[in-house]
Amino acid sequence: MSERGRFISLEGGEGAGKSTLLAGLHAHLLQRGVRLLQVREPGGTSLGEAIRSIVLDPAHPAISAESELLLMFASRAQLVRERIQPALEEGQWVLCDRYVDASYAYQGGGRGQPVERIAELERWACAGVKPDLTLLLDLPVSTGRARAAGRGAADRIEIEADAFFERVRHAYRERAQAEPERFRVIDASLSPGQVLQAAIAATDPLFEAS
Amino acid sequence: MSERGRFISLEGGEGAGKSTLLAGLHAHLLQRGVRLLQVREPGGTSLGEAIRSIVLDPAHPAISAESELLLMFASRAQLVRERIQPALEEGQWVLCDRYVDASYAYQGGGRGQPVERIAELERWACAGVKPDLTLLLDLPVSTGRARAAGRGAADRIEIEADAFFERVRHAYRERAQAEPERFRVIDASLSPGQVLQAAIAATDPLFEAS
Repeated sequence: MSERGRFISLEGGEGAGKSTLLAGLHAHLLQRGVRLLQVREPGGTSLGEAIRSIVLDPAHPAISAESELLLMFASRAQLVRERIQPALEEGQWVLCDRYVDASYAYQGGGRGQPVERIAELERWACAGVKPDLTLLLDLPVSTGRARAAGRGAADRIEIEADAFFERVRHAYRERAQAEPERFRVIDASLSPGQVLQAAIAATDPLFEAS
Repeated sequence: MSERGRFISLEGGEGAGKSTLLAGLHAHLLQRGVRLLQVREPGGTSLGEAIRSIVLDPAHPAISAESELLLMFASRAQLVRERIQPALEEGQWVLCDRYVDASYAYQGGGRGQPVERIAELERWACAGVKPDLTLLLDLPVSTGRARAAGRGAADRIEIEADAFFERVRHAYRERAQAEPERFRVIDASLSPGQVLQAAIAATDPLFEAS
């Protein structure tokens, strides 16, 4: 039986540079000989992508905070069971563009859903699968939104007001403070090269741990 | 301020005659001068219908039991807040084709999700909205399936084996036994006219209660 893989999640607000870092980190891990599964949330499965198209669609502006939370966990429960868990068990590493911390940040901090409610969903929906390392790209909200403004049409969550994203950032930073051994907070105002170097430095210990 | 409306849910397995009874009961209530909202689960809102098309689609056979439960509650949380609660508050009656008992029966009994898990979701997702009356159309599984066989293509849940629907029926009957004041179990092997008369008799007390 092969050694269990490592699970890395990448978190951060709008315009923090997640996509750029994902591409760089993906290339680095392949270069180090890792077999890698890269997925995203919400999505990553046929069910999850169908949920993604609902939950990010600006045509559904009236989605209740409760329904949004349930949809995010419906996508996550499927992703964990269908892809993440099997990959880890057969020795692949998994690089996930957002995972459960995003629910604490967006549906918790952003939408005001109670932390205990999210923790209870995590307890059974995630089947005990937790990242070995979570990279948090941290950036002032105004900087991130200015960066993201140049992109295409905003989705249903991206159109929220600054105060929403301040709460998201605050919740992310609280998560990181509460679990310093799992989180690595990276200053996303650094250059893409510097951000990648910080991420690589954070992943290095995963090659030793077992 | 108008008097709060009444909330009637209709439950039952495949081929139990829910649609026929809904039409008859709808007509009866209108005749009695009730302003009536009729909705269905999953569905009843723009979000809910989008979820319905996912969760009943036989093209998604691999949906995990956890995801199915979360999707049903995502649809329900939206339906309660967007339609049921506002209607009841302004004095309309609500007739709902399946409600939370269906999750105890299908995702609980059928798929094996723990009762406590469903009860915890009900606690916060349903915003305290519970039916005043639940009509359970009860029928042996073989009879119901024989009746339903003449219809069009079966959906993702209808294609389950008999054992699944036996567990669903058992869970429904347990729910009814546990809350006899809310439930009225109707023998669905009776004629459509007799079933309607039994349902009408069950709704009559709702006109007096307040």
